[in-house]
Amino acid sequence: MYIGEPKTDTAYISAFYYNAQHCEQQQGIGIEKIIGNRSKPGITWLNIDGLHDTALVERIGKTFGISSLTLEDILNTHQRPKLDEYGNYVYVVVKMLHYPKGSDELEIEQVSFLLGNNFLLSFQEAPGDTFDFVRTRLQLDNSALRLNGTDYLLYALLDTIVDNYFIIMERLSSRIEDLEEQLLNNSDEKLLTDIYWLKKEINRIRRSVYPLREVIATLDRNESRLMTPNTKWYIRDVYDHTVQVIESIENFRDITSTMIDLYLSGTSHRMNSIMKILTIMSSIFIPLTFIAGVYGMNFEHMPELKWAYGYFGVLIVMFFIAFGILWYVKRKKWL
Amino acid sequence: MYIGEPKTDTAYISAFYYNAQHCEQQQGIGIEKIIGNRSKPGITWLNIDGLHDTALVERIGKTFGISSLTLEDILNTHQRPKLDEYGNYVYVVVKMLHYPKGSDELEIEQVSFLLGNNFLLSFQEAPGDTFDFVRTRLQLDNSALRLNGTDYLLYALLDTIVDNYFIIMERLSSRIEDLEEQLLNNSDEKLLTDIYWLKKEINRIRRSVYPLREVIATLDRNESRLMTPNTKWYIRDVYDHTVQVIESIENFRDITSTMIDLYLSGTSHRMNSIMKILTIMSSIFIPLTFIAGVYGMNFEHMPELKWAYGYFGVLIVMFFIAFGILWYVKRKKWL
Amino acid sequence: MYIGEPKTDTAYISAFYYNAQHCEQQQGIGIEKIIGNRSKPGITWLNIDGLHDTALVERIGKTFGISSLTLEDILNTHQRPKLDEYGNYVYVVVKMLHYPKGSDELEIEQVSFLLGNNFLLSFQEAPGDTFDFVRTRLQLDNSALRLNGTDYLLYALLDTIVDNYFIIMERLSSRIEDLEEQLLNNSDEKLLTDIYWLKKEINRIRRSVYPLREVIATLDRNESRLMTPNTKWYIRDVYDHTVQVIESIENFRDITSTMIDLYLSGTSHRMNSIMKILTIMSSIFIPLTFIAGVYGMNFEHMPELKWAYGYFGVLIVMFFIAFGILWYVKRKKWL
Amino acid sequence: MYIGEPKTDTAYISAFYYNAQHCEQQQGIGIEKIIGNRSKPGITWLNIDGLHDTALVERIGKTFGISSLTLEDILNTHQRPKLDEYGNYVYVVVKMLHYPKGSDELEIEQVSFLLGNNFLLSFQEAPGDTFDFVRTRLQLDNSALRLNGTDYLLYALLDTIVDNYFIIMERLSSRIEDLEEQLLNNSDEKLLTDIYWLKKEINRIRRSVYPLREVIATLDRNESRLMTPNTKWYIRDVYDHTVQVIESIENFRDITSTMIDLYLSGTSHRMNSIMKILTIMSSIFIPLTFIAGVYGMNFEHMPELKWAYGYFGVLIVMFFIAFGILWYVKRKKWL
Amino acid sequence: MYIGEPKTDTAYISAFYYNAQHCEQQQGIGIEKIIGNRSKPGITWLNIDGLHDTALVERIGKTFGISSLTLEDILNTHQRPKLDEYGNYVYVVVKMLHYPKGSDELEIEQVSFLLGNNFLLSFQEAPGDTFDFVRTRLQLDNSALRLNGTDYLLYALLDTIVDNYFIIMERLSSRIEDLEEQLLNNSDEKLLTDIYWLKKEINRIRRSVYPLREVIATLDRNESRLMTPNTKWYIRDVYDHTVQVIESIENFRDITSTMIDLYLSGTSHRMNSIMKILTIMSSIFIPLTFIAGVYGMNFEHMPELKWAYGYFGVLIVMFFIAFGILWYVKRKKWL
Repeated sequence: MYIGEPKTDTAYISAFYYNAQHCEQQQGIGIEKIIGNRSKPGITWLNIDGLHDTALVERIGKTFGISSLTLEDILNTHQRPKLDEYGNYVYVVVKMLHYPKGSDELEIEQVSFLLGNNFLLSFQEAPGDTFDFVRTRLQLDNSALRLNGTDYLLYALLDTIVDNYFIIMERLSSRIEDLEEQLLNNSDEKLLTDIYWLKKEINRIRRSVYPLREVIATLDRNESRLMTPNTKWYIRDVYDHTVQVIESIENFRDITSTMIDLYLSGTSHRMNSIMKILTIMSSIFIPLTFIAGVYGMNFEHMPELKWAYGYFGVLIVMFFIAFGILWYVKRKKWL
Repeated sequence: MYIGEPKTDTAYISAFYYNAQHCEQQQGIGIEKIIGNRSKPGITWLNIDGLHDTALVERIGKTFGISSLTLEDILNTHQRPKLDEYGNYVYVVVKMLHYPKGSDELEIEQVSFLLGNNFLLSFQEAPGDTFDFVRTRLQLDNSALRLNGTDYLLYALLDTIVDNYFIIMERLSSRIEDLEEQLLNNSDEKLLTDIYWLKKEINRIRRSVYPLREVIATLDRNESRLMTPNTKWYIRDVYDHTVQVIESIENFRDITSTMIDLYLSGTSHRMNSIMKILTIMSSIFIPLTFIAGVYGMNFEHMPELKWAYGYFGVLIVMFFIAFGILWYVKRKKWL
Repeated sequence: MYIGEPKTDTAYISAFYYNAQHCEQQQGIGIEKIIGNRSKPGITWLNIDGLHDTALVERIGKTFGISSLTLEDILNTHQRPKLDEYGNYVYVVVKMLHYPKGSDELEIEQVSFLLGNNFLLSFQEAPGDTFDFVRTRLQLDNSALRLNGTDYLLYALLDTIVDNYFIIMERLSSRIEDLEEQLLNNSDEKLLTDIYWLKKEINRIRRSVYPLREVIATLDRNESRLMTPNTKWYIRDVYDHTVQVIESIENFRDITSTMIDLYLSGTSHRMNSIMKILTIMSSIFIPLTFIAGVYGMNFEHMPELKWAYGYFGVLIVMFFIAFGILWYVKRKKWL
Repeated sequence: MYIGEPKTDTAYISAFYYNAQHCEQQQGIGIEKIIGNRSKPGITWLNIDGLHDTALVERIGKTFGISSLTLEDILNTHQRPKLDEYGNYVYVVVKMLHYPKGSDELEIEQVSFLLGNNFLLSFQEAPGDTFDFVRTRLQLDNSALRLNGTDYLLYALLDTIVDNYFIIMERLSSRIEDLEEQLLNNSDEKLLTDIYWLKKEINRIRRSVYPLREVIATLDRNESRLMTPNTKWYIRDVYDHTVQVIESIENFRDITSTMIDLYLSGTSHRMNSIMKILTIMSSIFIPLTFIAGVYGMNFEHMPELKWAYGYFGVLIVMFFIAFGILWYVKRKKWL
Repeated sequence: MYIGEPKTDTAYISAFYYNAQHCEQQQGIGIEKIIGNRSKPGITWLNIDGLHDTALVERIGKTFGISSLTLEDILNTHQRPKLDEYGNYVYVVVKMLHYPKGSDELEIEQVSFLLGNNFLLSFQEAPGDTFDFVRTRLQLDNSALRLNGTDYLLYALLDTIVDNYFIIMERLSSRIEDLEEQLLNNSDEKLLTDIYWLKKEINRIRRSVYPLREVIATLDRNESRLMTPNTKWYIRDVYDHTVQVIESIENFRDITSTMIDLYLSGTSHRMNSIMKILTIMSSIFIPLTFIAGVYGMNFEHMPELKWAYGYFGVLIVMFFIAFGILWYVKRKKWL
């Protein structure tokens, strides 16, 4: 039932049990212990890295009263970002974007959140350090995270993910600038292929980010007790960031289309220059070669051939014809 | 009154009479028996393959109290996917897409559903194995299908159809990847024709799938007792899938447009290369040929002709001219 | 006050006076008789062919209590399809499309309907046989037309008009297929002009059909006693057909745009082929001609000229150069 | 505070004081008299030509209780058409389009209306005869204008302006037809420039007319006692006309885009033809010239040169080569 | 926490304390004094130039009871224009556009407003003279600014910013006219690059201005006591201006796209002309050169060579061939 390629070998669970007073972190916790800890007071945050162990996901789901439909969705990594409201929890799917170190190929990872009254479950496809900043802040006494509920924790995690998008945007922006510079200097055919792949990548990112706007707007409209009015102020902030990212993407789409025009026009301009050379060379030498041909004919009666200055005369005529044509071409601004 | 080309010779009806306790399957059932079974308790699912037997469709319609307008719609296979709500039943039209074995031409088959309180009628244009998985599950005791009503059965059938779309999407996706690879390697004119047909096919699929989103959303909003709240959770799942398919289609449309640009630009780039060769060949040899022409003239008084090293001198001059032009062309980056 | 070109010489009125029990048809009825018949019980359907006789239209209007604004609209044949609701009648304007026999130029005719409680007036610009099927059915006892009110008659006439659109769609579809076939075979400049005219015609049709969707939706939403709930079921059917026609038109628009790309690319591809020939011919013969030119020079001291096998040697060298170039061209896949 | 270029030297005011019984026209009336006439019973219509006399506009404004914001808007001629509702009056801005006699440059004039309970003020940038028809009708006893209120007068004036748009549309339509005809016949570069200017002009018109739809719809929705239900019927008529104009504009925009494609394709087609000629000429003569060059070489041992029929043989061979190439070219359909 | 590049060295605060009776201006006021002045009656307007001193911003925030989320937003200069409503204040972000003196690169500066009941805080990234006109008017007794509340002051400042946009629009408009003129005269490749940069700049401006429409509409809909009905009339005026600016931008976008077409077509037209020259030169001289080549052959038996008028005959024949080709080319309208 797991749909997607496994990106990690074994599932790894890290748990946080915290409230305003204390915070307890358990790395690599097992499912039995999770069930045992279920009755702990305060807030539980479980972060599961790796989804291919469907049995594990199912047992976690049962422990927290999650519907089987939701579990299926968590295990299907080809979903659009979305938000489903159930009676006792809210299910949020978002996409995390990152370029692996030393690679130019964007990786899209699906992250699912289950927001309950006193628990938050986050499911990632592979381990990563994106949430480390949240983990650090969680261990600080008096941090906003400790003083607020699970909805604020969800906000903090979503905020981290959306802030990461800006890094992707900057990378795209610098790739586009690179391409622009190359475009203005040469017309390698590879360039167009590069623009094409860039455009496809922008489309991929777009499909990952676009639905997020609606997801976060729905979170903001959520009327249940799961979202406190205070957290909604912060959620609106994430919403603004998402809109900014979407605007960047739309701008990039527009720019890449114009770049294709620029490339095509550059190509045709270069062709023009080449044709001009050919035309001018031909226009000058074709008539001259014809004249040389005429005097290369072997007729017995060709009076000019006997003239003492025939040869020099012809050379001078040729010279004037060449310059006449050059002058005409210059005047017509074809060169 | 049947509009469309008959895709099968004789209509074939398979019937399921089931409830939580038992399930009875009758293959190739006749109309008389259907009428006789009408009063059976539990749920009736009739699947009719083949629509050209209009009399049969009409008698089935009368048996289940279906309006003649609906019957006309069932028999017209050129419809858009739609949902009509009548007093005692809901009429749903969707399109099934599949590539016949060994063929590259997409076939679009219309499937009509009539959802009543204790019956579901499904009309297909031709026999097929798409619903076999549902049939198998129906025969299992304790399967969700047996424990729920006709609305859940409708969900299961719609889900099967929409899941099939993903197979079509994958096929399109791999065709596009094929075309991309070819595009980057050569510029066969056939390629553009291929992109054109692909684009037309994507348009056809789009028109089959696009209205489905609205159909399923209407099903979700349905207030009548025909749709139970529980089934609506599942219907929302089908909705999500439909949206995903539509997004893929939009993406494919966008990509094919860019491919046409890529093709045109590749063509013009290749033209550029060819023109360069011609220009360079001409630019080098046209002046040289002219010089040879000059010394081929038959003037009596051409002093150079008598020089001992005239011939070799001219050859050397030609050599330098050729290299001068080549050097100039290289410096200008035209090669 | 009549705006448009008269398409017929004299206005011709045909009248139907009917109810469930009997039906009386009067062809070529005069205005006096119409006024006299006004008090007849049952339903009156007047069909007026030809609008240039404004006095006649005005008198009919007065007889049935039609506002002068509506009469002006009837007489202006450049209107968009629309629906205006007045107190005692509904005014509907639609466009009828047809290709005159033996002609390729689409004719657009405006048809106005005035739907009253016990009368329906239909105004056409020219006589035609489109409504004959309705007339025939009207004379049958027990036909649905006879058993229902004026709203059902309006439905039947609108249905006839919209069904006619499908014929236009088929014609367009086959014209597009013709053009496609030609596109793939040659690149006559006329072809592009054909696509251009086709595009303009599709735009014309689009403007005639697009507003109809809104017109029929408004008819469906009509709350007055003029539209019975029963007829609304049928109106929805016409609505579905209209949406189908609109989808076809949108599809045709999209296809014609792509066809222009296809044409342009075909042109540039053919240019490419021509340029290749030129380039290869030139590339092979230009160096050879140069060599021949060299040995055509008249220098006194050209040692090769005296060699016994000089001539054959040069021929062989030329042969190898030609084949070398051909081989290089083949290897580079330029041919 | 006046924004725009003055289009007339002195402001000129014409006044109408009328009710059902009588109508009094005062041409070139002064501001003092207007103030004096303020208390006259019946309806006052003041038409002010020329806006640069801001003091005058201000005094008129004070007399009729107009807000200073409105007066600023009247004096700024760069506004979009809009409608502002104030407590005691409605402010409407529209654009009047016309081609000055003997000129091809469209002039856009701003017209402001202030609709009060018993007064209508209209401000034009320059004198013109557009409203003359309304003036004439106003002087007829029993004309609808005399029997209705200021709202009907506003309708009549708006109707005049919108009817004028149709003249502009016809002019554009005939310009487009001209361009089409030229496009199909030649490929003058000027043509593209013409299409470009046409497109810009269509855009200008579009911006003048587009917002008018919303303005008139707002007028129709106006709930105040300033708009009577009766007049609204007429306003809807103007609305329909506006929509028709907008549709024409959208159609023109679409057509001009396609025309650019048509032009570009015509250009490339002509280029194709030229290239064909060049290629065929070259393909035929280049090999022949080469052969001539071979037999022009001065080798001592060239056996063919001594053959009695060598020359004729070569001529015949050349003839066959030329026809062979021509035949090949014909068969390949390059010519 | 400051996001953006500091555009000034030290933050500079100017304060206005005013009511209808008096107005006190304090330039370069310190934070201590601001806190001290907090209890002053009347309206406080603080304008802060320079945002990098985050401590200062924070202290000001605390003094006026601003949420930390808002302060973060103020310090992040990469925001979209937006409006956030808090309990006791409204937060508005807009973008100020200007070209630095002597530079062609547009600068976008973020301006934040905090509208409270008796205070208005405005945060700019750098000092500037945009608000000087408001400052001057503020010092006049009886000016509307002094008689109204903080909302009117906000309107005046927004109005100043939006009015500035028109200057940018005029600059863009004249750049476009420049480009148009150049386009019609030559086809420098730099031109396309210019259009490209222009398009990018228009996109940048668009993203700065587009969201402003929504911001101002929200301000108009604001129900709190912060916005008085009177000021809303003025806000609507700013709204109209913003819509006008947005329309200009959309128009510019449309025009630049058409300009790219115009450029490409100009290029291809020029190519056409060049090709024509080449083709005509070649077509005339290639056959002539061939004839000369024929009579340059060294066959012993070439009867024509011995004819007395052979040479002149050939020259005449060549002359007729050249004119024949020229005539043919003229007739075919290729020249």
